[in-house]
Amino acid sequence: MFPRVKGANDFFPSDFAALAKIIGQLSLACQKYGFNQVMAPSIETVKLLTAKSGEETKNQMFLLEKKSSEENALKYDLTVPMTRMFVSKQRELAKPVKWFSVDRMWRYEAPQQGREREFFQISVESFGSDKPEADAEIINLFIDCLLSTGLKDKEFVLKVNHRKLLEGILQDIVPKGKTEAAMRIIDKSAKLEEQQFFAEMEKAGIDNTRAARIKHATDINGTLDEVDKKIAKHLELNELALEGWKNLKAALSMVKHKNVRVDLSIARGLAYYTGCVFEAFDTEGVFRALGAGGRYDQLVQLLGGEACPATGFAIGYSTLSLLLQHHKRFPQAALGPDYSIVPLNEEMLPEALKLAHQLREKYTVDIDIMRRKIGKQFDYANGIGAKKVIVVGPEEIKSKKFTVKDMKTGKEEKKKLAEL
Amino acid sequence: MFPRVKGANDFFPSDFAALAKIIGQLSLACQKYGFNQVMAPSIETVKLLTAKSGEETKNQMFLLEKKSSEENALKYDLTVPMTRMFVSKQRELAKPVKWFSVDRMWRYEAPQQGREREFFQISVESFGSDKPEADAEIINLFIDCLLSTGLKDKEFVLKVNHRKLLEGILQDIVPKGKTEAAMRIIDKSAKLEEQQFFAEMEKAGIDNTRAARIKHATDINGTLDEVDKKIAKHLELNELALEGWKNLKAALSMVKHKNVRVDLSIARGLAYYTGCVFEAFDTEGVFRALGAGGRYDQLVQLLGGEACPATGFAIGYSTLSLLLQHHKRFPQAALGPDYSIVPLNEEMLPEALKLAHQLREKYTVDIDIMRRKIGKQFDYANGIGAKKVIVVGPEEIKSKKFTVKDMKTGKEEKKKLAEL
Repeated sequence: MFPRVKGANDFFPSDFAALAKIIGQLSLACQKYGFNQVMAPSIETVKLLTAKSGEETKNQMFLLEKKSSEENALKYDLTVPMTRMFVSKQRELAKPVKWFSVDRMWRYEAPQQGREREFFQISVESFGSDKPEADAEIINLFIDCLLSTGLKDKEFVLKVNHRKLLEGILQDIVPKGKTEAAMRIIDKSAKLEEQQFFAEMEKAGIDNTRAARIKHATDINGTLDEVDKKIAKHLELNELALEGWKNLKAALSMVKHKNVRVDLSIARGLAYYTGCVFEAFDTEGVFRALGAGGRYDQLVQLLGGEACPATGFAIGYSTLSLLLQHHKRFPQAALGPDYSIVPLNEEMLPEALKLAHQLREKYTVDIDIMRRKIGKQFDYANGIGAKKVIVVGPEEIKSKKFTVKDMKTGKEEKKKLAEL
Repeated sequence: MFPRVKGANDFFPSDFAALAKIIGQLSLACQKYGFNQVMAPSIETVKLLTAKSGEETKNQMFLLEKKSSEENALKYDLTVPMTRMFVSKQRELAKPVKWFSVDRMWRYEAPQQGREREFFQISVESFGSDKPEADAEIINLFIDCLLSTGLKDKEFVLKVNHRKLLEGILQDIVPKGKTEAAMRIIDKSAKLEEQQFFAEMEKAGIDNTRAARIKHATDINGTLDEVDKKIAKHLELNELALEGWKNLKAALSMVKHKNVRVDLSIARGLAYYTGCVFEAFDTEGVFRALGAGGRYDQLVQLLGGEACPATGFAIGYSTLSLLLQHHKRFPQAALGPDYSIVPLNEEMLPEALKLAHQLREKYTVDIDIMRRKIGKQFDYANGIGAKKVIVVGPEEIKSKKFTVKDMKTGKEEKKKLAEL
């Protein structure tokens, strides 16, 4: 037997049905907000893929063996290829451009629960607006996406922050050259013990006193009003932080959901984000992040476009599935056909086939292709979850009335074709 | 600007909507026959991918740079990965196993019209039955798939043949060791001038007299009855050919469609197929093959499973799209939202947002996120194809009645929220 590749999943019928159902729910949520679906290729140039993230990220990519001078790799997110698509038509497209995509992507990382090497995400991008309305729309849609899958709002929380707020506060504590390093440590602080946090800061040249001040500041979290009080002194004379906070407040004032918390420890990577940032987690804190997003006003220009503000988010299928399973709300599909047709013997096959073709105008219909005895055919119909079984024998053909057996109740009824 | 990779397509909203629509039609056709959808990873081991096709096909694959000892590549068809999936659960699955998959695949070939390096196919596989019923089901479904997209039956033709029939006839003409070489030339004979055909045969060690006899035999085509007469003398004392012909007749007797022709020049590759084989072409002969399939009774065993008969087909999205475009029947989606909400000014935003959220329970709704003047908002609503526009101003909020403008007719109506 040939094994499948490590970190990649097979989707058997019930797995696929669940994937399709959840993708359908997420897509509908996006469509309701006026977003249209797009799709970029799986393969992009390494030049494009490293433009944002730098050459060092190449070792997390699946690179393709060179066939020509072009160096290509599998995409590792959807934002970069979608932004490339946007840039290629930037001038002709009316702004804002509101797109989403549901697709596979690939990262060479150690597989673990909720993290595969080949995985699915929905990615939503809004190009063209620098207004808090755009951030609010993205946050509202993000939460509506999660709710659309059957999650309840008490089961997850959205933690939001603003890059300018955080940067401003950090600038008051550490020299400007060290804010990026500090940000990187804050970004992973949820996974660090307190001791590790201080050790990492020390390594980055930030002493314990300053690290303690950073910790104190980034420990701030709560509702908009709660945080408003807690951060008042951080905003004094700090224009950058104040601008960030005002912008975040304006966006959140238009968010209709209650499961949003401001959390100053949300940093979301490095140079990528420029404004609001957010991450969603299951309330019990059992799983990895469900999804994340934020404003990225510099990416379009970085990828060769004209300067253009943008904001968006992504939700991964893996963690979402785990959380839905955890709450016993993962979709269970009924895969069987509406009808299974059981020809009594080989001679009945032409009439049985005719019936199958007629019923297929309205229904999903299976019919024996193994020339099995009637008992085995019933076993199979039962095994695949057929809802009803119709036996076709000489009597049925003559009377043009078929015995329909409901496989759930066991009830039998005689029906004409037109009554089926 | 960063270019996209050669031979790979961007799907912008209208492209994606067409793809999604056609995939939906094809999938529904499969479901009506009791087939369930599955999906294998994009990446498979080179060992698996070359098991059927041999090491020399590696240069047509997109190989991944090695990260460990495992040598991986992007899949170049769906049948092999789906067969691997089948083998991995062969014992626990009730037979027949009827699966389809719609997915991307990759081949490193020179891109041309209807042939990309990254492309989509639907692939349908039926594992477990060696009966002509299974072949007939696959052929019926193949044609129903094409019809489901809006093609008319006079616009394409299915050419069918049987490997045993062809092999039997060839064995009467050339030594057994040369049948495979002859088959390979027959397979591409539609693309060869007569002179080239003879030259290629000569190169393969088949002299002109024998090549002429092959040409004569493989020129046979027509309806089942027509061919029945024409090949009578080829079947005399030729058990293999006779077995193939009987089997093909049995299958075709259960095919409900009229656009099927027997064509002895259909060979379909080399060692892969073992029984019925078929290919569909547009009737005018303008495009590449729309799809193809046949019986492959040895693949399951070759991929490590227990011996198990199988039959299936694949349809490519590219040629199908070209043919639909040719007949002006390629799907044109109406992408605009049901409603565009136009707040008169910034102060109206909270109420306008509230209205948007309420309408989203039933409709797709866009709302300005750029703080534009009303005229610009109308231009945008028009540009994205919004069906109706609702202006939200102080008067509307007070009276709780909204003016709804139908963007197609220009008509305006006053309506309460409950009436929308």
